Amino acid sequence: MVNDSRFGVISIVGGTGALGGGLARRWAQAGIPVIIGSRDAVKAEAAAGELRKAFPGANVRGLANLEAAREANVVVLTVPFSHQRPTLEEIRAGLPGKILVDTTVPLVPPRVARVQLPPEGCAALIAQQLVGEHTTVVAAFHNVSADSMQSDDELDCDVLVTGNKAEAREIVVGLAKAAGLRAWHAGSLENAAAAEALTSVLIFMNKRYGGLHTGIRITGIADDAS
Amino acid sequence: MVNDSRFGVISIVGGTGALGGGLARRWAQAGIPVIIGSRDAVKAEAAAGELRKAFPGANVRGLANLEAAREANVVVLTVPFSHQRPTLEEIRAGLPGKILVDTTVPLVPPRVARVQLPPEGCAALIAQQLVGEHTTVVAAFHNVSADSMQSDDELDCDVLVTGNKAEAREIVVGLAKAAGLRAWHAGSLENAAAAEALTSVLIFMNKRYGGLHTGIRITGIADDAS
Repeated sequence: MVNDSRFGVISIVGGTGALGGGLARRWAQAGIPVIIGSRDAVKAEAAAGELRKAFPGANVRGLANLEAAREANVVVLTVPFSHQRPTLEEIRAGLPGKILVDTTVPLVPPRVARVQLPPEGCAALIAQQLVGEHTTVVAAFHNVSADSMQSDDELDCDVLVTGNKAEAREIVVGLAKAAGLRAWHAGSLENAAAAEALTSVLIFMNKRYGGLHTGIRITGIADDAS
Repeated sequence: MVNDSRFGVISIVGGTGALGGGLARRWAQAGIPVIIGSRDAVKAEAAAGELRKAFPGANVRGLANLEAAREANVVVLTVPFSHQRPTLEEIRAGLPGKILVDTTVPLVPPRVARVQLPPEGCAALIAQQLVGEHTTVVAAFHNVSADSMQSDDELDCDVLVTGNKAEAREIVVGLAKAAGLRAWHAGSLENAAAAEALTSVLIFMNKRYGGLHTGIRITGIADDAS
């Protein structure tokens, strides 16, 4: 296994869920040091053990969420919208000076196929308000199918990466590519509203057209520009 | 020229602008009866005359906006966000019983590459509030490059069609296809927020990557399902 330490250690808070588990799998496979975070450290370590078995030599550990955040260079939050606030309050002490990758889609059950953005504009802006100015929030991975992430399938969905600092976005673009995805700088953090809203559209289209993994591709830019 | 009367008469309010002119051109070319609407009837008729010259036999007329709305079966609004409200107030009397296709993108200059959705949620919902319940608003055409519409180029951008009535959406999907575009049912009118927000993302990406006509494609659904 090649060791890819470009990004430092990536912690995935909510890493035992579908999206978090998929990202952990793909980064572990790419040789990136990964910590799986969970409210339950035992469950986190069990998930990490599964990945070490699947990818011998992979650098994967499991920790409770706050410890996972403290140990990481980049923290990826992959929890449902209803857990976003309490989880960020739980891990906030581990975040200053780091990049927080928010993947939260503000779905409001039961009408998840209907765009219902929060009054703050989007979930990414809520995250930035909660963590304060010493943590750089970048939003990404809203539109990829969590199921597809957990397979070796090629993923036919681009990632829109938004955030107010281009250097931080660039790191997340690199992480998306390491996970086998095409990814793009998509503007300031407010622009996460587009990707968050699009998820409800894709859920609608999966129902309407009988698709499973409806996604998007950016057109009109040369592939090698991404 | 084949006459395509499936949709009745289509009026394009703001039809002398870039997007409206592009749609008029493509529908006229497809044999669909088109009325170009403008605040200035003389200007509208001049634009119609250009299209009749370009496509001999095309059924294209020019009228002042309110008259254009009165004569149409489907009214397409293609004006800048700042003109959306006054233009709808101008044509409202001509709309009851019809489909209004809102193409408004709530860009707030000078920061047009930044998503700034209105407090109402999206421009399409503003349109529905303004025209009342006797007009069916469908939102579409937010992401296509107006420049590309005015050429014969194949358009590499899908159209997300949102609205609360599936039959009305179906008509707009058909109109988009007649204009040479791939188009999709994308859910209820609130979901227009996704397409409206995406326009700012695409403007950002045009700048960032030096693209001219950045667009989107839906993936994961068979082409023939559209």
